Amino acid sequence: MSVDRLDAQMAFLMEADKLKAITRATRNHDGRFENSAEHSWHLALFATVLAEHAPEPVNVGRVVKMLLIHDIVEIDAGDAPIFGEVDHSAVDASERAAADRLFGLLPQDQATEFLELWHEFEDNETPDARFAKSLDRFQPPNLNLAIGGGSWTDYNVSLETFEGKLAPKIQRGAPALWNWLHPRVKAFFRTA
Amino acid sequence: MSVDRLDAQMAFLMEADKLKAITRATRNHDGRFENSAEHSWHLALFATVLAEHAPEPVNVGRVVKMLLIHDIVEIDAGDAPIFGEVDHSAVDASERAAADRLFGLLPQDQATEFLELWHEFEDNETPDARFAKSLDRFQPPNLNLAIGGGSWTDYNVSLETFEGKLAPKIQRGAPALWNWLHPRVKAFFRTA
Repeated sequence: MSVDRLDAQMAFLMEADKLKAITRATRNHDGRFENSAEHSWHLALFATVLAEHAPEPVNVGRVVKMLLIHDIVEIDAGDAPIFGEVDHSAVDASERAAADRLFGLLPQDQATEFLELWHEFEDNETPDARFAKSLDRFQPPNLNLAIGGGSWTDYNVSLETFEGKLAPKIQRGAPALWNWLHPRVKAFFRTA
Repeated sequence: MSVDRLDAQMAFLMEADKLKAITRATRNHDGRFENSAEHSWHLALFATVLAEHAPEPVNVGRVVKMLLIHDIVEIDAGDAPIFGEVDHSAVDASERAAADRLFGLLPQDQATEFLELWHEFEDNETPDARFAKSLDRFQPPNLNLAIGGGSWTDYNVSLETFEGKLAPKIQRGAPALWNWLHPRVKAFFRTA
């Protein structure tokens, strides 16, 4: 171990601290907007507890690692709310540049590993990525249900919009979780 | 998989959301007090990046899992600042009761597993626990250095107090990290 190596690792970890200041559109149980660092923690916990519901075998450790780093690009690129108006190609380009800069702070071997893991998550094609991505879509509606609307109310979202934006990814990566969530969301919108 | 099982897992995960509202004595780079959920995320990232510096082989996945759940008891017991005046036996009793209640929300097999993992962390005797505990002690001084004082200033902490409270655990569980940190902390107190 060279001292330079630990210097580079610490530079990355202290830069990552800034993720705690990136605000999302979802609200926690107390009404405060969730930040992307605590969101990443919550998702890693979801993966740890819910891994048995993945529809095909996943490597839980890899899924957790993916979720710990999946939003770090937002330090440079910001959060793009799922119900907001977004220029997807601009966001993609901004996030790719952010991934290069931020993971590039690490020693070369770790930079390559983290960058590949982040691209795997974004591409959403492997079993690990599909399960991780579905948890990223599954957690916010549960926060919305807990607080009685949350981002659905803020963005004036209908049941149809919710289903159109969320169902495909959650159904594909975690059908058992979608089957648990969907009737609860329908019940909410019926009485909202 | 029974529906009851998923109901219990979701009850735990949504109760865990409350960790985002538990405030610590350490400040993030922007001066805001860190909460225990984002702290847990940061530590899991530290473990992922710094595992090679453990003085003996560790299971990184277990260390990460330990760190994801290590502060959940604070939902009931609150955070006990390391430089504050604390009745340790009262805190211990309160945290043990919190662990029983909170992990007890999970299905029995997971409740047992999480409770054992939390006790292993607290007991600080296995290689995984020693490394996890040392990261829990190593991260806050780095935040303090980044912000120019932080909880050291708030609690009027001297270099000797810092060394007395922090050195034993970090040195034992991650001597390479202590050797990296110590001269930086000494330089800070020399000019503070």
